[in-house]
Amino acid sequence: VSSSLRDDLLSVLGAGGVLPDVPRSYLIDETETRDVVGRADAVVLPASADEVAAVLRFAYETRIPVVPRGGGTGYAGGAVPDGGIVLSLERLKAVRSFDPFHWRMHVEAGVTTAQVRERARASGLYFPPDPGAGEQSQIGGNIATNAGGPHAFKYGTTGAWVTGLEVVVPPGDVIHVGGPIRKDVAGYDLKHLFIGSEGTLGIITAAWLRLIPAPEASRAIVAFFPGAVEGCAAIDELLGSGLDLAAIEFVDEEALAATPAAFAPGVGRAFAILVEAEGATAAVGETIEAAAETLVGADFIYSPETSVGQAAIWRWREGMTSGVTAQLGGKVSEDVVVPLDRLADAILGTREIGARHALRACSWGHAGDGNLHSTFMVRRGDPSDFAAADRAALELFDLAIRLGGSISGEHGIGTQKLGQLERYWQPRAYELHTKLKDVFDPLGLLNPGKKL
Amino acid sequence: VSSSLRDDLLSVLGAGGVLPDVPRSYLIDETETRDVVGRADAVVLPASADEVAAVLRFAYETRIPVVPRGGGTGYAGGAVPDGGIVLSLERLKAVRSFDPFHWRMHVEAGVTTAQVRERARASGLYFPPDPGAGEQSQIGGNIATNAGGPHAFKYGTTGAWVTGLEVVVPPGDVIHVGGPIRKDVAGYDLKHLFIGSEGTLGIITAAWLRLIPAPEASRAIVAFFPGAVEGCAAIDELLGSGLDLAAIEFVDEEALAATPAAFAPGVGRAFAILVEAEGATAAVGETIEAAAETLVGADFIYSPETSVGQAAIWRWREGMTSGVTAQLGGKVSEDVVVPLDRLADAILGTREIGARHALRACSWGHAGDGNLHSTFMVRRGDPSDFAAADRAALELFDLAIRLGGSISGEHGIGTQKLGQLERYWQPRAYELHTKLKDVFDPLGLLNPGKKL
Repeated sequence: VSSSLRDDLLSVLGAGGVLPDVPRSYLIDETETRDVVGRADAVVLPASADEVAAVLRFAYETRIPVVPRGGGTGYAGGAVPDGGIVLSLERLKAVRSFDPFHWRMHVEAGVTTAQVRERARASGLYFPPDPGAGEQSQIGGNIATNAGGPHAFKYGTTGAWVTGLEVVVPPGDVIHVGGPIRKDVAGYDLKHLFIGSEGTLGIITAAWLRLIPAPEASRAIVAFFPGAVEGCAAIDELLGSGLDLAAIEFVDEEALAATPAAFAPGVGRAFAILVEAEGATAAVGETIEAAAETLVGADFIYSPETSVGQAAIWRWREGMTSGVTAQLGGKVSEDVVVPLDRLADAILGTREIGARHALRACSWGHAGDGNLHSTFMVRRGDPSDFAAADRAALELFDLAIRLGGSISGEHGIGTQKLGQLERYWQPRAYELHTKLKDVFDPLGLLNPGKKL
Repeated sequence: VSSSLRDDLLSVLGAGGVLPDVPRSYLIDETETRDVVGRADAVVLPASADEVAAVLRFAYETRIPVVPRGGGTGYAGGAVPDGGIVLSLERLKAVRSFDPFHWRMHVEAGVTTAQVRERARASGLYFPPDPGAGEQSQIGGNIATNAGGPHAFKYGTTGAWVTGLEVVVPPGDVIHVGGPIRKDVAGYDLKHLFIGSEGTLGIITAAWLRLIPAPEASRAIVAFFPGAVEGCAAIDELLGSGLDLAAIEFVDEEALAATPAAFAPGVGRAFAILVEAEGATAAVGETIEAAAETLVGADFIYSPETSVGQAAIWRWREGMTSGVTAQLGGKVSEDVVVPLDRLADAILGTREIGARHALRACSWGHAGDGNLHSTFMVRRGDPSDFAAADRAALELFDLAIRLGGSISGEHGIGTQKLGQLERYWQPRAYELHTKLKDVFDPLGLLNPGKKL
């Protein structure tokens, strides 16, 4: 950190708000598995929205980029800086209010998603979004990326649970959009424009969240099929059955091989489907029984009654990312989304693309949303592996678009998909997209090099 | 219609696409009860998105305003023209595709909401949004206003069910945002920017809708309370109970008096609460029984078992608008929204404001969303009544904001709340709002004089 920049920032924030150096932990996110490490000139930890505004005002006066940072659990490089000031929201961690009777919570950006869920649950309420890394990921970052997760199938992504935002916008103003209200059509939907904008339009400092009564019970089962085609046919049957399911996840053969499931030893495991229902206890039992009947073509169905067995299912599912990463040390993992009826094409297509580039490929993810974590395994530090994976990823994006889908279902563009949007969006739509950025951040200092 | 304008439009659209004159029915919407009637130079009925684009291109070349029009059931004057070309979407009425197995429907803008719901229901699926006037209101207009309705309490407003849009934007381009996919965070959320924009940013020509399995059963009850304070306390209890309810509606004393309920003769009727549950038959029964226990302070609870009795409840609820209008012939009805805990303040405040301006006032609406139809009754054709109602409406907006709410929960700004947004939004937020309009419609020809 240059001493003059540090002195300037100290005059803006005081000693508690500026780190003496730039720790490596502020230069990375989950794209570390792609050997991505950023660089920064300073790290600031403002303690309030006003302090965030003061930093942004300073940045706008001095033309220095600002990279907002939540828990650093993103998969697209959105929080990885390329110079400038890293602005971490970690000190904005107050629950400003929690009103269980009216199903709402007002939290600052640095509160973790796990804290929101635990606080709600203690009062019989439920915050459904469940992107991975709940203990580390922060609600501000989850909103800025519109994070998904398994239960987005029933409940929608994070943005569906936000009724209001406090946002700092250039050149340093704190604005509010929405609030502790459940409907608002007065103005254009600025709230949804900030949701998923990856910190490129404004810095989210607080959010009003909507909650619902916690379901009385939940129950999951895992069914194993001989292959992706059979498995996807079963998923189609599940959807067509109209059962009220909370999550429908899948894991393909190569991903299964990377993640031993203690509950399915010896099973010929080529394709797994995880199905969960949530709701009243009796209804959940009936729904899961009906789902099991629908999955009649399965080789094996694991259907534990105990909470230990249930926990084992989700621990296995949540271990997928690290299990696959552990195979060769690194991975290039995307998050394409396709129409539900094209899921098998996308799963098989991922494998074919990997084979063409001599890469081990696999996929798993949110079958019920048509959202795949299509993954190419690479050796950390091996440039030829990474180059092959980058080429494979481009073919994967083409495939998703050809199938009628999108290049990102939940991770966003970040740096890792930069330049892709203009390949797929119509020119006029992309032009509107870039002009929106200009409206909010005319100097282009907010998280530059991300999203567009 | 001037013959030169008509000739020009005929050259763009052909004979089937241009009306010979300007029927009065294209100059009004539900604000007719406020004596609002517009004027227009021509009415066009394009039959495709490309024809809509051709009209917009012509309008941009000749600098003529274009006012998009759905079913004309809005309450804010959003479809009332003030000169220029009225562009009705009524001929875009194809269901482009319906895939019941994958819970989605692709419809053109002119399909009515009732048609969407019926088509879904015939395959065991459900399109939850239920703004009034389903037979007449069109899905394009419902999306352009992000229409609400009673079931928005459980399911959210219309926008929550839209996964993709086809939109014609100036100067005459057809663009697509989203599609038949359930998640998409690739670009900024242009989709939500069009939703609720009241035709001022683009003209929606088609939408991809998300559906869910139809609930097995639904059941409603109506509870009558001695007054608004007691009724709102009961609503608070209902919310706090955490019961899984689909709708919580209220009707205050003066509105009750305007709408005879055959099922509650002789009951001292000062405040009514309508509660509905949807889901598995057994669960619905249990939920409604539990709700009835929660409403123990009621004077009387109507809890019919028959479908005839159930239908009577909703017929009564849906007759509220016309019943209140019939009292004096006209009304000025707003749609403010407040935090749930301020509902009683808003209901009593509406009455106080009415009294101050010597107007009969009442309210009813979506209690579970804190969304009130606060209404001042007026004599049609009486300017002093209307002037008093306009003054009362301004006080009502102030009240909603003071209570932490918004001036519009579901009707939008249109012409009727024009100028209000800048009174309540922070200057920087309002500046961003106006700049968004400039990005999409730099000449200001799309539905001018609405929203901003």
